[in-house]
Amino acid sequence: MSRSTRYSNKKFGLPPGSLVFTGRKKTEQLQISVMDYGPEQLEESQSRDITSCFPFRDTSATSWITITGLHETEKIEALTKHFGIHPLISEDILNIQQRPKVEVFDDYVFITLKILDFEKDTRLVGIDQVSLILGNGYVLMFQEQQESLFDPLRKRVRESKGRIRRMNSDYLLYAILDIIVDHYFVNLEQISDHIETIEKHLMTEPDPKTLNEIYRLKREVLFLRKSVWPLREAISRLEKSESALITEKIIPYLRDLYDHAIQAIDSIETSRDLLSGMLDLYLSSVSNRMNQVMKMLTIIATIFIPLTFIVGIYGMNFENMPELEWHYAYYAVLGFMFTVAIGMLIWFRKKRWL
Amino acid sequence: MSRSTRYSNKKFGLPPGSLVFTGRKKTEQLQISVMDYGPEQLEESQSRDITSCFPFRDTSATSWITITGLHETEKIEALTKHFGIHPLISEDILNIQQRPKVEVFDDYVFITLKILDFEKDTRLVGIDQVSLILGNGYVLMFQEQQESLFDPLRKRVRESKGRIRRMNSDYLLYAILDIIVDHYFVNLEQISDHIETIEKHLMTEPDPKTLNEIYRLKREVLFLRKSVWPLREAISRLEKSESALITEKIIPYLRDLYDHAIQAIDSIETSRDLLSGMLDLYLSSVSNRMNQVMKMLTIIATIFIPLTFIVGIYGMNFENMPELEWHYAYYAVLGFMFTVAIGMLIWFRKKRWL
Amino acid sequence: MSRSTRYSNKKFGLPPGSLVFTGRKKTEQLQISVMDYGPEQLEESQSRDITSCFPFRDTSATSWITITGLHETEKIEALTKHFGIHPLISEDILNIQQRPKVEVFDDYVFITLKILDFEKDTRLVGIDQVSLILGNGYVLMFQEQQESLFDPLRKRVRESKGRIRRMNSDYLLYAILDIIVDHYFVNLEQISDHIETIEKHLMTEPDPKTLNEIYRLKREVLFLRKSVWPLREAISRLEKSESALITEKIIPYLRDLYDHAIQAIDSIETSRDLLSGMLDLYLSSVSNRMNQVMKMLTIIATIFIPLTFIVGIYGMNFENMPELEWHYAYYAVLGFMFTVAIGMLIWFRKKRWL
Amino acid sequence: MSRSTRYSNKKFGLPPGSLVFTGRKKTEQLQISVMDYGPEQLEESQSRDITSCFPFRDTSATSWITITGLHETEKIEALTKHFGIHPLISEDILNIQQRPKVEVFDDYVFITLKILDFEKDTRLVGIDQVSLILGNGYVLMFQEQQESLFDPLRKRVRESKGRIRRMNSDYLLYAILDIIVDHYFVNLEQISDHIETIEKHLMTEPDPKTLNEIYRLKREVLFLRKSVWPLREAISRLEKSESALITEKIIPYLRDLYDHAIQAIDSIETSRDLLSGMLDLYLSSVSNRMNQVMKMLTIIATIFIPLTFIVGIYGMNFENMPELEWHYAYYAVLGFMFTVAIGMLIWFRKKRWL
Amino acid sequence: MSRSTRYSNKKFGLPPGSLVFTGRKKTEQLQISVMDYGPEQLEESQSRDITSCFPFRDTSATSWITITGLHETEKIEALTKHFGIHPLISEDILNIQQRPKVEVFDDYVFITLKILDFEKDTRLVGIDQVSLILGNGYVLMFQEQQESLFDPLRKRVRESKGRIRRMNSDYLLYAILDIIVDHYFVNLEQISDHIETIEKHLMTEPDPKTLNEIYRLKREVLFLRKSVWPLREAISRLEKSESALITEKIIPYLRDLYDHAIQAIDSIETSRDLLSGMLDLYLSSVSNRMNQVMKMLTIIATIFIPLTFIVGIYGMNFENMPELEWHYAYYAVLGFMFTVAIGMLIWFRKKRWL
Repeated sequence: MSRSTRYSNKKFGLPPGSLVFTGRKKTEQLQISVMDYGPEQLEESQSRDITSCFPFRDTSATSWITITGLHETEKIEALTKHFGIHPLISEDILNIQQRPKVEVFDDYVFITLKILDFEKDTRLVGIDQVSLILGNGYVLMFQEQQESLFDPLRKRVRESKGRIRRMNSDYLLYAILDIIVDHYFVNLEQISDHIETIEKHLMTEPDPKTLNEIYRLKREVLFLRKSVWPLREAISRLEKSESALITEKIIPYLRDLYDHAIQAIDSIETSRDLLSGMLDLYLSSVSNRMNQVMKMLTIIATIFIPLTFIVGIYGMNFENMPELEWHYAYYAVLGFMFTVAIGMLIWFRKKRWL
Repeated sequence: MSRSTRYSNKKFGLPPGSLVFTGRKKTEQLQISVMDYGPEQLEESQSRDITSCFPFRDTSATSWITITGLHETEKIEALTKHFGIHPLISEDILNIQQRPKVEVFDDYVFITLKILDFEKDTRLVGIDQVSLILGNGYVLMFQEQQESLFDPLRKRVRESKGRIRRMNSDYLLYAILDIIVDHYFVNLEQISDHIETIEKHLMTEPDPKTLNEIYRLKREVLFLRKSVWPLREAISRLEKSESALITEKIIPYLRDLYDHAIQAIDSIETSRDLLSGMLDLYLSSVSNRMNQVMKMLTIIATIFIPLTFIVGIYGMNFENMPELEWHYAYYAVLGFMFTVAIGMLIWFRKKRWL
Repeated sequence: MSRSTRYSNKKFGLPPGSLVFTGRKKTEQLQISVMDYGPEQLEESQSRDITSCFPFRDTSATSWITITGLHETEKIEALTKHFGIHPLISEDILNIQQRPKVEVFDDYVFITLKILDFEKDTRLVGIDQVSLILGNGYVLMFQEQQESLFDPLRKRVRESKGRIRRMNSDYLLYAILDIIVDHYFVNLEQISDHIETIEKHLMTEPDPKTLNEIYRLKREVLFLRKSVWPLREAISRLEKSESALITEKIIPYLRDLYDHAIQAIDSIETSRDLLSGMLDLYLSSVSNRMNQVMKMLTIIATIFIPLTFIVGIYGMNFENMPELEWHYAYYAVLGFMFTVAIGMLIWFRKKRWL
Repeated sequence: MSRSTRYSNKKFGLPPGSLVFTGRKKTEQLQISVMDYGPEQLEESQSRDITSCFPFRDTSATSWITITGLHETEKIEALTKHFGIHPLISEDILNIQQRPKVEVFDDYVFITLKILDFEKDTRLVGIDQVSLILGNGYVLMFQEQQESLFDPLRKRVRESKGRIRRMNSDYLLYAILDIIVDHYFVNLEQISDHIETIEKHLMTEPDPKTLNEIYRLKREVLFLRKSVWPLREAISRLEKSESALITEKIIPYLRDLYDHAIQAIDSIETSRDLLSGMLDLYLSSVSNRMNQVMKMLTIIATIFIPLTFIVGIYGMNFENMPELEWHYAYYAVLGFMFTVAIGMLIWFRKKRWL
Repeated sequence: MSRSTRYSNKKFGLPPGSLVFTGRKKTEQLQISVMDYGPEQLEESQSRDITSCFPFRDTSATSWITITGLHETEKIEALTKHFGIHPLISEDILNIQQRPKVEVFDDYVFITLKILDFEKDTRLVGIDQVSLILGNGYVLMFQEQQESLFDPLRKRVRESKGRIRRMNSDYLLYAILDIIVDHYFVNLEQISDHIETIEKHLMTEPDPKTLNEIYRLKREVLFLRKSVWPLREAISRLEKSESALITEKIIPYLRDLYDHAIQAIDSIETSRDLLSGMLDLYLSSVSNRMNQVMKMLTIIATIFIPLTFIVGIYGMNFENMPELEWHYAYYAVLGFMFTVAIGMLIWFRKKRWL
């Protein structure tokens, strides 16, 4: 629950640019995996040694360098130094409460964004941060833990499917972003499914648990929103940056990505509106039920309270109560009470309370 | 219900530009129908063979090429390749969850938008996607199923009514957009009718079903809104694009279209506000009814509970209760109780509870 | 009620520029009235023949040509053709669901806006559309029915009051707009009066009718808002248009008009906020009343239910109930019950329920 | 109450620029008071003759000309004509429903704004309009009635305190504006005090009067808002106007004024939010109280209703009821009922209803 | 409570630029402390004599001059005069109700912002104002009281940790701002913790205190918001100012700061949304409880009221009531009543009230 509302104060008082990992350690050991590819060649390697990836900065082929696990801050520092990254950017990579953003420098582009994962059982949205650095001929990808999300992309590189092997590092960057944004729709679909389930529940038998579900989902949608909104502006800035690293050819792809981001935002807003509407509906249906209960009580009470009064009268012990001695008085009273009860029922029906 | 809140994950992990139809198959077989016309001539043809329409790209007359059914993706791919459409645009044509948008390229203009259909019985808004490509001398129209909506336009072409036969392909594009936007008003009118019906219901006898109706309509209006809002920006972009395909003569028509789109948005917002107001009214009228019920209960209970207590007193079996032996005690008690009851009624009336 | 939420579908499927009158016929026959004036001369004429006003296009004096009644579409068409108006503008003149707007052409300016009329008895806002065309030396005014609103302006022209006779057609246009916008304030004042009346009602004796009144007024304010908001932008566009028809001298007047429009919007927004606040107040005061009723019930019930139990005890028929035979038992029980009742009242008062 | 929701229709139908005073007459007779000062000299005069101030237009010293009372419209007209003011501006000076605004002309600057006065007893915000005209070497100030607000400023001029005597007419203008804006804070502080008082009340003993207070205060804050919001834009326009009358030296002062206006808006928004929060709190605390009352009723009723049933059983007159004859039956029944009551109380406590 | 809603009227009527301290005296005596440092040297001094810091204006090293305690206005005036600060800025330094802002002058930059301190026990946000003046080679810092917040920064200067000793005064300014903004996150984390605690409470046992807590926290978040929002614009203005005092090197740091400010705003907005959601949840859970109580009452009452009526019948004293004499009548009645009770319970269960 605390995952997104918390902010780390580990860093308070440290000099700016101090490298501190603000997350939980999700991976045992830092791991480097490299894919170095061109139209014709492909080289893959894995290592725990940070220096193993240094040479790829200067290969003419496109290198996709993935760093998994961010808690070994000195290694990250060594890496970013080698690739000439500004210390504040290194700090941003390690600070996993970063807002999605794009920063364009002369010789590299920095992008940080969120991978979302709606877990069906707990109905919580898990959030991992991914930071990307696009340089000349390489993409550095920093992630907190191994993400299976990118497996299809790796496969496409390996099998040279689509145009990926023929394109430059900016297309690789786009392909990674595209995977992440497309994954949002998987999450959104699951949330939509969940909303529909709750909706059906609401119509048939609303109970307090439904309310808790709505509240929870609202909160999760709130976090989703917070993670996706800034993305729109970030991608737009990427598209409009006149960086030499972003080639002309890639612009239509980025525009497409931008459309997807807007579409994701649209559907988050729709989910929000639907959940608000459902909350209203729940509250009204609860108050409807209460109404029914109240009506029941009123009908029973208003019929029997006067009748009980009548029988009370003839239970009094006065010596002089002539009615008591009349032969058919008892039946007369019973009949009278029956008439009163029927009369009241008719009146209720006329008042539309029944 | 799921029609608009769902997002397809069929495409997750595929390379960008992969042609996947994300909708349900609404038409048995892909069908091509072509109208090729000029001021003096008209040629109509229908076919299931995708290549049959290829020659029309280069005729000097204006060609309106309609492709119905989007599930045969290879045929669509062949067509878009022939007409020189970017693969990402082809992808957008097949992805029926597309947001309305306009993209202007050097030699064609791409427009995608929604045809709405409010079904009176189910009170659901059906949404079909239509994509249009305006090229030099032709308009390609991709639709999920046969839309009777365009019949009046076809008739105008056939009978050479209005100026359509004398104008270029950009006027044809405008005429198609105009039909779609005008059709929104047909839907909006039906929704307005529905709102009025509910309103009358609300005034006379609100019941929980009314609430469900309001909620449903709100949700449908939400979807309408989502489909119409982006259109405004799209048309504005079309108007301001300095594409050679959009001639000077067509600008006033596009501005008119833009006005219509804003008017549609206006009336959607009004419907939303009215529905919100009706929800408030419903809730208040329900709580009013509850109030009346409660008052009834209170009046009956507060009158008879004390009286029942009094008759209880004289039902006690104490040996020494002198009143019991007085000759007119019974009548005195009856009279006293009557006085109490009347007094209470007067008091209630003074307190304005009756 | 339907007056503003409805949209006409009479026009669906017709070619753009088709002249169809979308309103109800409010006037028996189309009527033309012309005022042709200069600093020194004034000529007035009335006619049912549309061609009678054609010569005024070219007189050097300023001509104010009023066309009343829009259902005779061919006549309107003839007129607009003579004055060189674009067919889409003619269509807008006849479509009375038009949003207020300004369109500036090379040789004329088109303005359409609403005349509002809050009817005190029905508390409904009547809406008439007025379209104006400012040409070189003339103003064409199209209205659905005779509006008494413009009588003071006609009188000013006749009596050469103010500067109107010395000014050009753009001043006439401004004077007409000024009258219409000033008339909004008359409506707004009536609505304000109504709000005040309801407010007083609310404080003294809220009832469900008040709620209905608030709801109604809210809806009317909604329609007012829809008619007035776009005006602001329209006037601003008029002011900023560099049309030769709008002379330098008229700019301060238009700026003044713009200020009035903003002021009208301001007061509509205030009315909306007040009505929302009143709704809250109403709901709270209703729930307050309910609270009082509930308290009453609780007090009566909690006092008498235990007492009735006590008298019930001594109404039991057990053979061995020694208390029944004690001489003063009856009085003791009465005294005890009295003490209980007083004790409870004191306790309620301490709990601040009384 | 009507003071701010009303709009005058006195002016409807009159030619633009007609001078009509739309307010109530707050001052018996129009009065002119002039302060003519330079670094070394000071001349003060008071008069009822409008022409007495005409010469000050052309003195080389700075003249502060105050006109109090706006109902003698011909005198105002004579004055504005002499000073070369546009008739529409004269109209704005007399129309006290004006929105705060700034208009910059070639040889004068017009500013109109509101003086606010929160009256503690009635909790109503009194609104007076002040219009200012900054000319070359003079400031004309039009006010509805004598405002004691400006006394400290007059004193500063007389005693040559601060830099006022050494500065030009634009500094005088600023000093007047500064006084008015600073006075807003006095009002806002009083409203804040009031909010605090209500807040304390809310926590201890909320009653319906509190609700009325909150509603009233909300309405007043609404009016404040309406008077202060446009000021921000007006001052900003003044600062950015490149009028020769606004010297370079005065810009930091205007920027400071702008900051104050924003701060006033900020605190109005805060007050609004606090009042909304208080409304929620009030409603919840009322519903909490109701809950307690309901619980009380339920507990009493659910304990005694079954017990009353039991004693009713033994009050029946059947001949064959063996229990009645048992010797300790009475005590047994009493004991049984006591046990039931205790059991229920324990059960209620377990359910956390007690 | 009044700390942030109050505005001082101490200053009303004084000339602009009058130095008045509008806060409470939080420090006994004004104190000056100076750190004068360069890459190689460091000089620290403390004094109560204001003139002691005057020479540092002209030292070539970077001087960090802290003035603690703002109530001795003449001393502040002497200081600001010496450093050539505009009187309006001096006024702003002393006016602790200032909105966060940046003002860029030719030879200095003025920044004012808030230090926030959420006190866990009282759940109140304490607000101190800090004003900073960046000049050529010095930073003046004005604070109301000694802030322990800056101790880590002082330590970094002393121990020459990070790059601070090698950088200019603009980096010092940045470092101070960074500390303050980072401290916001410490506060926000504490508020988040608090929100979580309340949330857990809400789920298990909501009580009126929870409501008060939510309301309080909402109010505090409101104040936080008011203090943090304007910061965003202020930092952005600082970044975009082309002041010679802000060197090129510092821009990435300011951009980073800007990101932090946005992140703080983001999380404040999230807290607001969460608190609103919790309020809804609280209200619903309270109404749920009420529902349960009502059901209880209804069930007890609807079962026993009819039964009590039945026993009342046989408590009547009519002479001719044949049933009374039947031998097993008593048991028959008991059995009948038992059946009725069971039947009702079954019916309730079917209606899902149990």
